Amino acid sequence: MIILLKENSSKSQMNYLMKWLAQKGVDVHVSEGVNRKLLTLTGNTSEIDTDLLKSIEIVDDVKRITEPYKSSNRACHPRDTVVRVGNAAFGGGNFSVIAGPCSVESKEQVLKIAQDIKKSGAGLLRGGAFKPRTSPYSFQGLRENGLKILAEVSKETGMPVVSEIMEQSQLPLFEDIDVIQVGARNMQNYELLKELGRTKKPILLKRGLSCTLQELLMSAEYLMMGGNENIILCERGIRTFETTTRNTLDLSAVPMLKEMTHLPVIVDPSHGTGLAKIVPPMALAAVAAGADGVMIEVHNDPANALCDGAQSITPSQFDTLIKQISKMRECCYKYDSQKEE
Amino acid sequence: MIILLKENSSKSQMNYLMKWLAQKGVDVHVSEGVNRKLLTLTGNTSEIDTDLLKSIEIVDDVKRITEPYKSSNRACHPRDTVVRVGNAAFGGGNFSVIAGPCSVESKEQVLKIAQDIKKSGAGLLRGGAFKPRTSPYSFQGLRENGLKILAEVSKETGMPVVSEIMEQSQLPLFEDIDVIQVGARNMQNYELLKELGRTKKPILLKRGLSCTLQELLMSAEYLMMGGNENIILCERGIRTFETTTRNTLDLSAVPMLKEMTHLPVIVDPSHGTGLAKIVPPMALAAVAAGADGVMIEVHNDPANALCDGAQSITPSQFDTLIKQISKMRECCYKYDSQKEE
Amino acid sequence: MIILLKENSSKSQMNYLMKWLAQKGVDVHVSEGVNRKLLTLTGNTSEIDTDLLKSIEIVDDVKRITEPYKSSNRACHPRDTVVRVGNAAFGGGNFSVIAGPCSVESKEQVLKIAQDIKKSGAGLLRGGAFKPRTSPYSFQGLRENGLKILAEVSKETGMPVVSEIMEQSQLPLFEDIDVIQVGARNMQNYELLKELGRTKKPILLKRGLSCTLQELLMSAEYLMMGGNENIILCERGIRTFETTTRNTLDLSAVPMLKEMTHLPVIVDPSHGTGLAKIVPPMALAAVAAGADGVMIEVHNDPANALCDGAQSITPSQFDTLIKQISKMRECCYKYDSQKEE
Amino acid sequence: MIILLKENSSKSQMNYLMKWLAQKGVDVHVSEGVNRKLLTLTGNTSEIDTDLLKSIEIVDDVKRITEPYKSSNRACHPRDTVVRVGNAAFGGGNFSVIAGPCSVESKEQVLKIAQDIKKSGAGLLRGGAFKPRTSPYSFQGLRENGLKILAEVSKETGMPVVSEIMEQSQLPLFEDIDVIQVGARNMQNYELLKELGRTKKPILLKRGLSCTLQELLMSAEYLMMGGNENIILCERGIRTFETTTRNTLDLSAVPMLKEMTHLPVIVDPSHGTGLAKIVPPMALAAVAAGADGVMIEVHNDPANALCDGAQSITPSQFDTLIKQISKMRECCYKYDSQKEE
Repeated sequence: MIILLKENSSKSQMNYLMKWLAQKGVDVHVSEGVNRKLLTLTGNTSEIDTDLLKSIEIVDDVKRITEPYKSSNRACHPRDTVVRVGNAAFGGGNFSVIAGPCSVESKEQVLKIAQDIKKSGAGLLRGGAFKPRTSPYSFQGLRENGLKILAEVSKETGMPVVSEIMEQSQLPLFEDIDVIQVGARNMQNYELLKELGRTKKPILLKRGLSCTLQELLMSAEYLMMGGNENIILCERGIRTFETTTRNTLDLSAVPMLKEMTHLPVIVDPSHGTGLAKIVPPMALAAVAAGADGVMIEVHNDPANALCDGAQSITPSQFDTLIKQISKMRECCYKYDSQKEE
Repeated sequence: MIILLKENSSKSQMNYLMKWLAQKGVDVHVSEGVNRKLLTLTGNTSEIDTDLLKSIEIVDDVKRITEPYKSSNRACHPRDTVVRVGNAAFGGGNFSVIAGPCSVESKEQVLKIAQDIKKSGAGLLRGGAFKPRTSPYSFQGLRENGLKILAEVSKETGMPVVSEIMEQSQLPLFEDIDVIQVGARNMQNYELLKELGRTKKPILLKRGLSCTLQELLMSAEYLMMGGNENIILCERGIRTFETTTRNTLDLSAVPMLKEMTHLPVIVDPSHGTGLAKIVPPMALAAVAAGADGVMIEVHNDPANALCDGAQSITPSQFDTLIKQISKMRECCYKYDSQKEE
Repeated sequence: MIILLKENSSKSQMNYLMKWLAQKGVDVHVSEGVNRKLLTLTGNTSEIDTDLLKSIEIVDDVKRITEPYKSSNRACHPRDTVVRVGNAAFGGGNFSVIAGPCSVESKEQVLKIAQDIKKSGAGLLRGGAFKPRTSPYSFQGLRENGLKILAEVSKETGMPVVSEIMEQSQLPLFEDIDVIQVGARNMQNYELLKELGRTKKPILLKRGLSCTLQELLMSAEYLMMGGNENIILCERGIRTFETTTRNTLDLSAVPMLKEMTHLPVIVDPSHGTGLAKIVPPMALAAVAAGADGVMIEVHNDPANALCDGAQSITPSQFDTLIKQISKMRECCYKYDSQKEE
Repeated sequence: MIILLKENSSKSQMNYLMKWLAQKGVDVHVSEGVNRKLLTLTGNTSEIDTDLLKSIEIVDDVKRITEPYKSSNRACHPRDTVVRVGNAAFGGGNFSVIAGPCSVESKEQVLKIAQDIKKSGAGLLRGGAFKPRTSPYSFQGLRENGLKILAEVSKETGMPVVSEIMEQSQLPLFEDIDVIQVGARNMQNYELLKELGRTKKPILLKRGLSCTLQELLMSAEYLMMGGNENIILCERGIRTFETTTRNTLDLSAVPMLKEMTHLPVIVDPSHGTGLAKIVPPMALAAVAAGADGVMIEVHNDPANALCDGAQSITPSQFDTLIKQISKMRECCYKYDSQKEE
């Protein structure tokens, strides 16, 4: 961390600052610039609040040299983390597809969709039991029963399942769920993250609607600080001024995150666009951008889905899409191997 | 709700839609447009998911006529709701000031600030015990002890206190806290909202960083659905592309919300701008825009604050500000009375 | 267009509105809803200002049924427009690559880069002569001389050239330029668009930093109204809160625009991200999303480029990228043909 | 400017950088940090492109110490610039009101409104002759005739007039216009700014919809570089995700700009909100935030205005508003004097 001081700082102000920094346990090296001093801090600077530092009278500006995220930082851990769930894997060259209905509506529905998507090649089944809905008057999910249905379908089909948790107290109900999803609205629910960091379950952490990539990694830190390193990051669209699509899918996040962190990164084009008709091209674009997986909403009867039917594709459209994805990955992989020869 | 059908819709598609609507328990009136039908729905349409409706083949577009928020809607409840806490009141012409440190650091600190701001005219004391921090390595608050300190200072000074809850399970600890704050990051933590809706405590609901005014009111619906009508809405800045200020304080939200809802609306210029130096002008602007109160961070030693010192003003700056606010309100009030004569 | 009236509108107000609409030359059909009237307007409603209409007392809301863009609307013109420049073509299944330096610096530079990218397979050469720079103290381009260099290199290499116009009065200087680019900052410079609509030159119209897809098409209307139908639309990143990348490349714009309009759509990942290292994956993602071309900044010595070196890739990186693009298009194309069999 | 080098930079890379900097004519001072070098640059660094500098291999990061805007920078020119037009003045404690219709429709209309607003206390008359409209099918303004009408009304009423220019070639037509407005869509039309910088007319420079405060000042630099220092900056709303208001009026821009620059700052709540009903409270909020003036759209028959009727208030509403503004300014001014005693 570098601190740039204002010109003409008094001795007493300087002493005050040096004492403040000493309390933080970092080493300080003073360099003389042209007409102002520069302090270089080394040691564990991640705990220093830069906004606070800036509020000290003689400090003109503060610049982090190292990123404030540590455990998730690729600089500290260059090799890809691979998250494995059943036979599926994310990261380190592994690519998997998560698919299923937005909400669990009945066992028949989930089982039917699970069988279809498994045949097409999906690695994991998703389904919402607790649903975060903007309106309290909308369907809120089957809750505990929804999780039970997922667990049963998982047992019958052999597919691992992903479902969203909304509250710390729901955690015991997720025992038979293989991957716990933290939704966009809870990405900065720090108490929940701390609790999940103490479990060993893989966590699917979705980017908040107005959260930066750095904030996403800081939320991953909350999980990793507790010892849980099985984290899959998920880009699912950010909120911008454009209203044609429900959100703006930020695919640049994929190559950027792959550079910033060793954690696997997947993309959810269903929530990211809100429009079934552009889910296939955006899923393919996510693959081309380097994603380690995609999560796709599939419903056998979108018009009668209890939520978000507008963004669900049918099992048959999903089958076509997954063939295109395989073709693209095969062709890109082949290309890569040719390059390496 | 109005549904616009596509041209050339078949009989069977039409029957399908009419059956779907019948299940929702709404009345449907069919009007013939030039070359397409229009359906007007009456009854409880707030439970109909418009996105879902749009995904039905023959539906071209759907338009709500009435807003999806009901309990908070001024159309259904024209008179201002007044929220009273101790001697302070918000709404219906009442204006109050909430002030205090970002975080509770020690009893001495909180007591000293409380005495100062009370003398200046603040109606409520605020202080964070549970702190939502982007980084897990930053100070997370004194937690339970912080709430105890607030309760003690409240007893000694007679000032009611406001503090932020982060998790449903913390609720029992808030017994001696007069107003429970739901922070921006939890505005759409629906499980928490449902729980708080079942209490009788006044709730200070802050707008999420990327939430629309309608979404803010939908979150208020979650609280009101449980029977709690003591809700104070708070504009605290939204996230935009501008980086000079930490957030963009959206003061238009004040007159817009006052029109949309009967609930009181206050403004937090400290978090809304992140810069102590522009807190006073923006607090005055909030008053001029018609806010029912302001919430101001005050710290006796901003540079040593354990969080957000950069946005805190000193007790002496606060004293000047509150005098300016009183002067402005007095002058505007006088003007209003002249107008009414 | 549908107009929803308020309840209890008086006869005289209704007469006023009907007269107002009559003046606009549209036909009006009145349907009776449950307790309010609905007006359906037919005829040329694109000239009716909906904001204005909403300001009329008894109007509750106004909804367009048909989009306000006409000439560019795919609904009116289902087949893809193909824009041909030299041997290159955009749209209707044709894909071309535009490449070259951000600014023209010297003939040697441009010629060298042109020869390199042509060998790799680029179809058009780009180079800025008039440079829109945020700072007046930054390099403003070689201006007229820059255009001359481009024309010479075009003649020597046989590659058609693209360059940006900034002002109507510069138009005569563009005689030997094959495609005139309208930059993001000028997307709503309507006087310039009107002038360019009267030429026959292909126009590369870049999306403004905070412009919606509909606004982009409305700007295309300004060009098409003058008779010019050779328009290539270009997604080049929008402005959001995220600061890791310079802009947020909105790739959903590609499939959305392809549905809304018959005009070809290309992507500029260099300006769209501002970071050379993620240009290749984002270019591939653009191809996968269905773009009709990409525009890539290539510089033989990025560190010494007179502008935007940070986003330029080298000729050798470009060569690798274009091979990957070809491979991907070939593989996707093959897949498509298989599907059609 | 400070340049932070990467660790382990080689001698030859260092020589390359030092040579590059030498060419820019700045002085370089090398300080040794803990394990990397810091370069402090002095001299005219405003012409150095920081993005370019960052693309040089051994450069890790670059930080400006002084802002890139010079002529408009308050640090270099602490006293307020006062822009005077007729009897009106902006800045240095002077406050003026600009009012009038969105577009000039006829001489009768403009004269009537001018007489009304003059009586109420407006200092300048505004009216659009060239209208930037999203749709080519909307009313484009009376153009040259509109300017003539404004000049005639100005002569008859003695009020100075403000009108928007859209194109450099229109400049000769603005001879009798007192203040030339550069609209939000042209804030970064650099060729136009350069041309206007060579005139002596006061310029009203509106902030672009997605432009930062620093970019606004950089555009002011384009004007000032040509010798024109009569610049009034105008906040008129930025584009965000919120759709209740047409734009989000960023009132924090007022105190921030007043600190960054010596130029006067006014606010346009009509375009900033797009809703007549919240124009009065937002105009008052602008005054409270410290604006040097406001610009208000007034129309005697908003429903029949040829553009933007939805955001225009009536002369009678304007009269009430201007009385409230005077009262507020008087009361704040009195307060200020009391404070100074």
